[in-house]
Amino acid sequence: MIDTPTLFSDILKAKERLKGVINQTHLQYSKTFSTWSGGEIYLKPENLQKTGSFKIRGAYNKISTLTEAEKRKGVITASSGNHAQGVAYSASLLGVKATIVMPVDAPKSKVEAVKNYGGNVIFHGRTSSERIERATELAHKEGLIMIHSFNDPYVIAGQGTIGIEILEELPDTDMIVVPIGGGGLISGISVAAKEKNKDIAIIGVEAEGAPTMTKSLRSGKLIKLDSIDTIADGIRTTQVGSITFEIAKELVNDVVLVNDEEIKEAVFYLLQRGKLLVEPSGAVTVAAVLSKKVNVKGKKCVTVLSGGNIDMALLKEIVTL
Amino acid sequence: MIDTPTLFSDILKAKERLKGVINQTHLQYSKTFSTWSGGEIYLKPENLQKTGSFKIRGAYNKISTLTEAEKRKGVITASSGNHAQGVAYSASLLGVKATIVMPVDAPKSKVEAVKNYGGNVIFHGRTSSERIERATELAHKEGLIMIHSFNDPYVIAGQGTIGIEILEELPDTDMIVVPIGGGGLISGISVAAKEKNKDIAIIGVEAEGAPTMTKSLRSGKLIKLDSIDTIADGIRTTQVGSITFEIAKELVNDVVLVNDEEIKEAVFYLLQRGKLLVEPSGAVTVAAVLSKKVNVKGKKCVTVLSGGNIDMALLKEIVTL
Repeated sequence: MIDTPTLFSDILKAKERLKGVINQTHLQYSKTFSTWSGGEIYLKPENLQKTGSFKIRGAYNKISTLTEAEKRKGVITASSGNHAQGVAYSASLLGVKATIVMPVDAPKSKVEAVKNYGGNVIFHGRTSSERIERATELAHKEGLIMIHSFNDPYVIAGQGTIGIEILEELPDTDMIVVPIGGGGLISGISVAAKEKNKDIAIIGVEAEGAPTMTKSLRSGKLIKLDSIDTIADGIRTTQVGSITFEIAKELVNDVVLVNDEEIKEAVFYLLQRGKLLVEPSGAVTVAAVLSKKVNVKGKKCVTVLSGGNIDMALLKEIVTL
Repeated sequence: MIDTPTLFSDILKAKERLKGVINQTHLQYSKTFSTWSGGEIYLKPENLQKTGSFKIRGAYNKISTLTEAEKRKGVITASSGNHAQGVAYSASLLGVKATIVMPVDAPKSKVEAVKNYGGNVIFHGRTSSERIERATELAHKEGLIMIHSFNDPYVIAGQGTIGIEILEELPDTDMIVVPIGGGGLISGISVAAKEKNKDIAIIGVEAEGAPTMTKSLRSGKLIKLDSIDTIADGIRTTQVGSITFEIAKELVNDVVLVNDEEIKEAVFYLLQRGKLLVEPSGAVTVAAVLSKKVNVKGKKCVTVLSGGNIDMALLKEIVTL
């Protein structure tokens, strides 16, 4: 059982901590996507967030709550990129040293950004499990504090501030559509939204090539994928977290899958029509709506665009669609 | 002499009329552009405005102030695209028929958008003068009401609402940098901003290949360019307006020029760093700041991004930079 009142109060505290640290991102109504889908579609543009994704919310909240002794030791994390930037940037703001274990095939733009924020980058493996293992090893050896990218109550609380913001701007939201990688974002948003109004539908979206939450929910236990394959590098996760799984089991209404073609199309239309640059893992929510895998007919539906850190080479390919 | 108090009160009235019609666009602080320029750079993202540009503000305000008899006759305008969309969309909202004279080389995306809003498109010439001539002719012949794209007090008042919004969000703005095509946008913003605080610097930006305001201000009289050549199709204007010229003479502090390479770079960085799709004419302000043609050192500087309607073919070329 999840202690949602405590989690919710942690989200409210996180909101206070994040004041003045993060950008206010405002809901944008999309006339085009509304017409195409039959719903009333709003975008929550976390691609316009500092560091280019929502990850700063959880990272900053977590590092803020460390003791002074822990802060002096420094932090370490494993990340495909956006959490890395969130940790590196937050750590630099808080005067804490950060070590980041990134995949060997991380997009250049993400690696450069981490280095610009003063993060110490170590390359290892391709999947989240490989990276987490290496980071855990280093944490033990060097006494660094591990900042998990999703399976941590303070990280989840930070991401949950998005849920509060959505309902402040659009109190009669019917549905929130959220990307799932490790499940931190959807966990935080679920807790925040359902505490405000238990009737809000929370719909998760995974890539067809990385359906760890889908399989875990279906089988009732944590499933670790043997292999993953998706263009959406931000949600290439082999296994969701124990905490995020428990929250999702209780609060997430449904999870749908989108394929790479649908994701690319969503990136394209977000750019051409929405004038927003969104990375593949951030665009899965719009992909789910436009492909009608989520039924939004007549509903006030918020799609969370989780980030905008996309390599220009991939963008070029997508623009050519 | 310009009657700025009357114009300012028209801007306030326009703001009321536009409530619920336009998107609220929020200033975005750019850490990257601030670091690069030494100023404190904020973006006013009118690329996220309905119809993809600020032009809806002036167009809607103007059409709203027509008499019922005039509305029944229908409106006509000449436009390179964004004003066309603004007029077509506003007219459809207000139940008025709109005819739009567009250049033969207008970007496809802009033509399609006008047609989607129910506008009747007529193609003619390449320059603003050619189009205005044809539209004036048709207006006479068919009794249509001409909606000038910049040289009209109500259009100027509509665009001026941007100035009010900027100062509501950032009251201690030191400088506002604004693209100049025909001068409607900078006229409205100048009046609004200087009425609030006469010390705010208003800097205009033209394309090197279309320096009509620069030449007019330098010679003290309206100059009509023989030819224009710039990638920025939204500001391909051979002559600024009589009204906008008078306002600029009185209220604009300086006008600078940027070339096509600088403009393309600005479009690229707005996309890669700012996660915003901005069309060339909307990116001239950031081009001016990044090329240091405007000195923003230590200043709170707002760059107006006037629109985001760019053809995907051109975008592809720019992404390859």
